[in-house]
Amino acid sequence: MRVTILAGGTGAARLACGLARVLAPGELSVITNTADDEVMWGLLVCPDTDAVLYRLAGLFNEDSGFGVRDESFHALEMLGQLGEPAWFGLGDRDLGLHLLRSTLRHRGASLSQATAEIGRRLRLQVAVIPMSDDPVRTRVATDAGELSFQEWFVRSRCEPPVRGLRFDGLEQAVPAPAAVGAVSGADLVVIGPSNPLLSIDPICALLGPHLRRERVLAVSPVVGGRALKGPTVAIMAQLGEDPSALGVARHYAAVAAEFVLDVADGALADGVSALGMRPHVLDTVMADAEGETHLAGEVLRVWQAAGR
Amino acid sequence: MRVTILAGGTGAARLACGLARVLAPGELSVITNTADDEVMWGLLVCPDTDAVLYRLAGLFNEDSGFGVRDESFHALEMLGQLGEPAWFGLGDRDLGLHLLRSTLRHRGASLSQATAEIGRRLRLQVAVIPMSDDPVRTRVATDAGELSFQEWFVRSRCEPPVRGLRFDGLEQAVPAPAAVGAVSGADLVVIGPSNPLLSIDPICALLGPHLRRERVLAVSPVVGGRALKGPTVAIMAQLGEDPSALGVARHYAAVAAEFVLDVADGALADGVSALGMRPHVLDTVMADAEGETHLAGEVLRVWQAAGR
Repeated sequence: MRVTILAGGTGAARLACGLARVLAPGELSVITNTADDEVMWGLLVCPDTDAVLYRLAGLFNEDSGFGVRDESFHALEMLGQLGEPAWFGLGDRDLGLHLLRSTLRHRGASLSQATAEIGRRLRLQVAVIPMSDDPVRTRVATDAGELSFQEWFVRSRCEPPVRGLRFDGLEQAVPAPAAVGAVSGADLVVIGPSNPLLSIDPICALLGPHLRRERVLAVSPVVGGRALKGPTVAIMAQLGEDPSALGVARHYAAVAAEFVLDVADGALADGVSALGMRPHVLDTVMADAEGETHLAGEVLRVWQAAGR
Repeated sequence: MRVTILAGGTGAARLACGLARVLAPGELSVITNTADDEVMWGLLVCPDTDAVLYRLAGLFNEDSGFGVRDESFHALEMLGQLGEPAWFGLGDRDLGLHLLRSTLRHRGASLSQATAEIGRRLRLQVAVIPMSDDPVRTRVATDAGELSFQEWFVRSRCEPPVRGLRFDGLEQAVPAPAAVGAVSGADLVVIGPSNPLLSIDPICALLGPHLRRERVLAVSPVVGGRALKGPTVAIMAQLGEDPSALGVARHYAAVAAEFVLDVADGALADGVSALGMRPHVLDTVMADAEGETHLAGEVLRVWQAAGR
């Protein structure tokens, strides 16, 4: 069974780990959002892709919620001492990965080829594929002007209300060839529980023509009206979407036939059905590896029970 | 009084610190050897230049003899974990400086302009000037083939006997404009106690036409037949030069009129005179900041006493 999950860096990265455990080696692909990427001192930093790589490799920093375990920030301290803006938490171990990725790209590898090479070196049995080899950059409109995603997310701590989102470069970008293959050849495409507007929309915009709705299952990142992590609910509200699991379902109704919502939102299942999607009420909160594996198993179970 | 010192990364860097203390702000320039530079994961690493910068800024790592104080090596550990060769001791804080230098160069600064900007940000009152903006690279001939300098010095721990030295790019390189200015405008040019063959020869090859012998004073890096640090004596012997203070004097006889040798080598002073150089016997061993300041004061004293 070939499964592909579309992922941001948080909930979907967790579900990817669960799926990697319940599927056989080589059966899982993860397509990551690159619109949050940012060039820092000449190095391309890919927060969502790297969160997935680090989680799958068992290196993710659970304490800080980003980057690598046992991290230090001495390079950043030196940059600060040298008068550079040091608001982005670029860790030393993390820098090692960025240096390798830059080196591979300087030698001629595309971003997706470089990511595949890093996955091999981390001995992953999952294909991690950035959505595109072309630069796509989230621009956040605020009352104080337009910010890059990391400027808004890290430097401004998500505080300025979001007046609009724009994905610079998206019109010109083409999906990474491996991403097209992973979606076209999948028996099941899972839209992971990530931010629909920030993380999933850019991937769907690129890969939409290759998605077949009857093979797509989306998992709500909103549980009981709250996101477990990150600014999902606030952004949905600020951009005029219903910031509930039902609002998420409505957002995905055109691309996904199956919809997983949390037991806390069981009362919304009829509303999901009314959108023409099949609702599946599951315990979607993944507190640890066991929770990840459990949800992954349940997702595959309801998918197979649906007879797709 | 304007003084310019030609420097590798060890003894001459110490003497530069001493000179910075006894001269007035803005009176000292340091021209650094760049032939030991090496590109590591796309970043230009300049060991001699950075040793001088770190020493002048009070950041040098006296314990390890290279790089920055309170250093960690987590980026390098990650690169090793990712299958990269990790023999070069690239520290995390050090990486911060390399990232800034690369960024400045990507924005259009030459190497010497980027170095000047870093010096300003470190609040140095000394001009640190790489000898050239063009790449010059030491190639070390050994029985096992030709190695880059860092491959020989670090990876092979100076073990393979040196059969020859070659400075790739030296013929095409031009000196950095600021280096020409610092030499031409100097009342005194000091050849610091660095390796004559590895560190000083490339600088002199570039700046020779601008050096006036009667304004040049050389300090022997060899004391009592030994170098205080590094492979100076072994390399001189392997390349057929007399590995003594007198051999160093002979090496510099055409470019320097004044020669400082250590009290341990006082018996060689007549031999230095016979080469047409004026010998100055001083305590040249710099164990700490006090020793650096003392030698710097003595160098200026004998220079002024010589009535140049």
